[in-house]
Amino acid sequence: MKKVMTALVSAIFMVNGYSQNKPSNSKELFPKGEKITNNNFTGTAYLKMLINADSLNTTTIGNVSFEPKGRTNWHLHPGGQILLVTDGIGYYQEKGQPKKILKKGDVIKCPPNVEHWHGASANEHMVHIAVSDNDKGAVVWLQPVTEEEYYK
Amino acid sequence: MKKVMTALVSAIFMVNGYSQNKPSNSKELFPKGEKITNNNFTGTAYLKMLINADSLNTTTIGNVSFEPKGRTNWHLHPGGQILLVTDGIGYYQEKGQPKKILKKGDVIKCPPNVEHWHGASANEHMVHIAVSDNDKGAVVWLQPVTEEEYYK
Repeated sequence: MKKVMTALVSAIFMVNGYSQNKPSNSKELFPKGEKITNNNFTGTAYLKMLINADSLNTTTIGNVSFEPKGRTNWHLHPGGQILLVTDGIGYYQEKGQPKKILKKGDVIKCPPNVEHWHGASANEHMVHIAVSDNDKGAVVWLQPVTEEEYYK
Repeated sequence: MKKVMTALVSAIFMVNGYSQNKPSNSKELFPKGEKITNNNFTGTAYLKMLINADSLNTTTIGNVSFEPKGRTNWHLHPGGQILLVTDGIGYYQEKGQPKKILKKGDVIKCPPNVEHWHGASANEHMVHIAVSDNDKGAVVWLQPVTEEEYYK
C-alpha cells in the first residue's frame, strides 16, 4: 500500500507540475527580456523586443514588464502608441489628465505627441505590449515621473 | 485503503482542475468578440477589434480566435501584418513556403503584399492578436485555403 500511495502522491505533483509548466498556463505570455538600465525609467522594468522596425514595416512591438513602482519617464511618440495590458495592475497618465488604473485586458491608444507615462502600480507588477509606429520619428524622452505625480 | 486511493485520485483531478481554472491562467486575455460571418474565413472564427484606425494612427489591432480547423482565406496586406499568438496551437503559411506551427508566445512578421493564411490547427483552437498598418491600403482577400493545402 505504501508503494501505491507514494505513486499516487507523486502523480499529484507530476500532474500539477505538468499543468504549471504547460505553455498554455504559463504566467509569462512573452519573454521578460532584459532589465532596462537607461535613465528613461524609474525603478525596475524589463524589455523584450518582439518586433523591430524595418524598411518595409516601421512598427515596433515590445513586451515591457514593470515591477511594483517601476515606471517610464514622461515621454511622447510622434506616431502615437498603443498599449495592450497582459498581466498585473498598472497606471497610465496623459499630461493634464487624471491617472488611469490599468489591468489585464485593458487597451490604451495614446495619440501622437501627447506627453504620457505608464508603469506598475505601487503594490503589483504590470506587463504590457507596446505597439509604436516609428514612421514619424522615435520616442522623445522627457523628465522622470516624480513621487508626488506617481502617488497622486 | 480504497478510501485513501479514492481521495488521492480525486486530489489529482482537483489539483489539475485548479491549475487550469486559476484567474491568472484565464484562457481569454482579450474578449472573444463576435463570430465572423463573411466569406473570407473557412470554419469558425471570432473577432474583437481592440484598436481601430483613425486619421492620426492607421494601425488596427484585432483579437482573433479560431476554433479547430478554422482559418482565414489566402490574403495579403499592403502594409504587412504582425501576429502575436496568445493561446492554443495554429498554423501560418506564406505562399510557396511550408506551413509553420504556431503556439502561445510565437510572433510572426508577414511582409507587405506576401500572400499568406493563418488559423487554428486541426485539433486545437488558436488565438492571436493581429497588428496591421493600413496606411498603404486595406487587406486584399483571395481564395479559400483548400483542405489539401490545410492538411499538407
